[in-house]
Amino acid sequence: MEMVVPLCINVVLSVVGFGVVLRAIPALSSMFIDAGLFGRDLCKADRTKKVPESMGMVSGTVFLVMMFLFLGVPFGQHFITSSKPFPHAAFSEYLTSLLSICCMLFLGFADDVLNLKWRYKLVLPTLASLPLLMVYYINQGSTTVVVPRLLRAWMGGTLNIGVLYYIYMSMLAVFCTNAINIYAGINGLESGQAVVVGASVAVFNMIELGGFQAKSHFFSLCVIIPFTITSLGLFIHNRYPAKAFVGDTFTYFAGMTFAVVAIIGHFSKTVLLFFIPQIFNFLYSVPQLFHFVPCPRHRLPQYNKKLDKLEPSVVEFRDTSVQWQVMAALRLLKYLRLVHLEEGVGEDGKLCRVNNLTLVNLVLVLIGPQHEGSLTTKLLVIQGLCSGLALFIRYPLADLFF
Amino acid sequence: MEMVVPLCINVVLSVVGFGVVLRAIPALSSMFIDAGLFGRDLCKADRTKKVPESMGMVSGTVFLVMMFLFLGVPFGQHFITSSKPFPHAAFSEYLTSLLSICCMLFLGFADDVLNLKWRYKLVLPTLASLPLLMVYYINQGSTTVVVPRLLRAWMGGTLNIGVLYYIYMSMLAVFCTNAINIYAGINGLESGQAVVVGASVAVFNMIELGGFQAKSHFFSLCVIIPFTITSLGLFIHNRYPAKAFVGDTFTYFAGMTFAVVAIIGHFSKTVLLFFIPQIFNFLYSVPQLFHFVPCPRHRLPQYNKKLDKLEPSVVEFRDTSVQWQVMAALRLLKYLRLVHLEEGVGEDGKLCRVNNLTLVNLVLVLIGPQHEGSLTTKLLVIQGLCSGLALFIRYPLADLFF
Repeated sequence: MEMVVPLCINVVLSVVGFGVVLRAIPALSSMFIDAGLFGRDLCKADRTKKVPESMGMVSGTVFLVMMFLFLGVPFGQHFITSSKPFPHAAFSEYLTSLLSICCMLFLGFADDVLNLKWRYKLVLPTLASLPLLMVYYINQGSTTVVVPRLLRAWMGGTLNIGVLYYIYMSMLAVFCTNAINIYAGINGLESGQAVVVGASVAVFNMIELGGFQAKSHFFSLCVIIPFTITSLGLFIHNRYPAKAFVGDTFTYFAGMTFAVVAIIGHFSKTVLLFFIPQIFNFLYSVPQLFHFVPCPRHRLPQYNKKLDKLEPSVVEFRDTSVQWQVMAALRLLKYLRLVHLEEGVGEDGKLCRVNNLTLVNLVLVLIGPQHEGSLTTKLLVIQGLCSGLALFIRYPLADLFF
Repeated sequence: MEMVVPLCINVVLSVVGFGVVLRAIPALSSMFIDAGLFGRDLCKADRTKKVPESMGMVSGTVFLVMMFLFLGVPFGQHFITSSKPFPHAAFSEYLTSLLSICCMLFLGFADDVLNLKWRYKLVLPTLASLPLLMVYYINQGSTTVVVPRLLRAWMGGTLNIGVLYYIYMSMLAVFCTNAINIYAGINGLESGQAVVVGASVAVFNMIELGGFQAKSHFFSLCVIIPFTITSLGLFIHNRYPAKAFVGDTFTYFAGMTFAVVAIIGHFSKTVLLFFIPQIFNFLYSVPQLFHFVPCPRHRLPQYNKKLDKLEPSVVEFRDTSVQWQVMAALRLLKYLRLVHLEEGVGEDGKLCRVNNLTLVNLVLVLIGPQHEGSLTTKLLVIQGLCSGLALFIRYPLADLFF
């Protein structure tokens, strides 16, 4: 009961926020375009249309305002119903979460406007997660991890990894923001994946509400529900055919929100399970991200006007321009049907052609050309199935090892 | 001793921040100009030069990062030196202050980029002050005011004004941001006034460190010192001849910082005393702000190329186009030497000419044309003298009435 009333109010506020986002985005579109915040949709026949960019700023601002309004509910009611002492630690963690999220929203928007260099994309989430780490430290948060059964004979049941835990949390913020950022490129994918991951985290929190860490999961729920529902409002404008792009503002903001709920909800390991497609996409991208294989500026799929479908985009390079280990790895991936690799093409027969190494292109390689709208749907279904897998790993499987 | 060490660390961090701001602004200038964030300096002979705008974003971000780093100092040391319980209420107030400031920095930057409409300028500070009011409420902050001696026979020694106090705090945020915003227009004035007010607040806090509210003033100091010193870095680039404009980002951010320290420091009435020039400027502007007298888009002084000096800018209108009460008021102000009013000018002798009603123009009317650099210096000296007056009102005078 103590949790039901605040959660109901939370849902009501979220739905109000959803309505505001839904109406605000079309109303503000021209203002964003006038300010130079727009992009061209490269996967369409008509590439001249200006689509407003950075619209994550709208859903993010609405989310924050709803969170500010909600603040008084779980903590304000404490004075009325509870005789226990005021939950100060939870309150300060909650405030810091909002601080880190607000900070990331600001820095993400600054990135969209100023086009910051790549290295800043690693620094900014670290800066924005600073207050959270500080408060974790001041609240003397646990830095202990549970050791898997196999290793317990040597290392004991739990292990205090101290400062490494802080580094892990900081890296989590960097990972979440960038993982969402690079798994992108087609209409609705950035906002859609955030909605699916958000909903999955919410389901996980609800399962854990009966557990012994109920309070932590309750606070995570209070953040993730408004996030998911307001992002759904954004998704409706961002899905095919996109009337709004989300911008780095959104991918940063969303990534930080996931990192934050994982930290204050004390499930900073479990949360990674909900990022299986993003982790796969990151690992799959490594050869291009680290320039073992040439990496063009855009790696999004190619639009085939005749079919009105998307095809995998490719990158061409001389087989002598990459190291033999890289070629061997690509051939192995080809054997595993994980890349579309052609060797000995081009006029002189010395060119290699490989699909750009993103999950979006891989899916197109595997199932053939797709209409953009249905490709997004399929990728989001994959995301959902992976969340099911994540819960399976978390519950029946983890019991075997921990 | 308990306060000396954190304050020293605070000053050291602030000086580091000062250095970062000083170097970052020239380094980032071209990035801001490329993003379309630039303005023309209208008080110069060469009006074609692009001056980067919104640079308050840089000093604001550096300020925030320094505050995040500082967070661990006053609260972290608590575990080492103090046997008293952890100051949870202060800690959450401190976090919320940063949240409100960060939020305002974000919204201010959004305003600079998107050119929001005038009405938003009133709404945004209210939104950004929401978390602060919520926390004030949750911490059961006092809503009691001391009644002046004269009225005590009827109203008692103190009066609980309840919700009116919250409205007052919210209005304080709106007032501070807009008061700084409209007292502007010449190089160095926005950042300079913020530095002078900041330093004045710091002096006031230091005096009060010996009083019975020492803790509150200590926390105010921890915020206002880094703010003042990083803003000084901005001022150095913003002063005549300006190599950077501060943007609404800065005026919003600075105004919110003053509102925030006044609220968490429990001197939300006293703080207004440090805004005497801004309040005067606002009241003086009222006839134009409410369009009793025509208000041109820019009211900054006029550049006289021959003298290389600034002269008061004027607005002309038909004497029949304004109400007789307004004309009477203008004549009264002329009698008091507070406006330069000419009647019966123009070809048909039916035009009125009056200086634009800002403090900057008034000073030019009173002391004659000035070089831009020296005008800023004089206005900042006036600001400093008013702070001296403020302290006089606060101490010897207030003792008579309270």
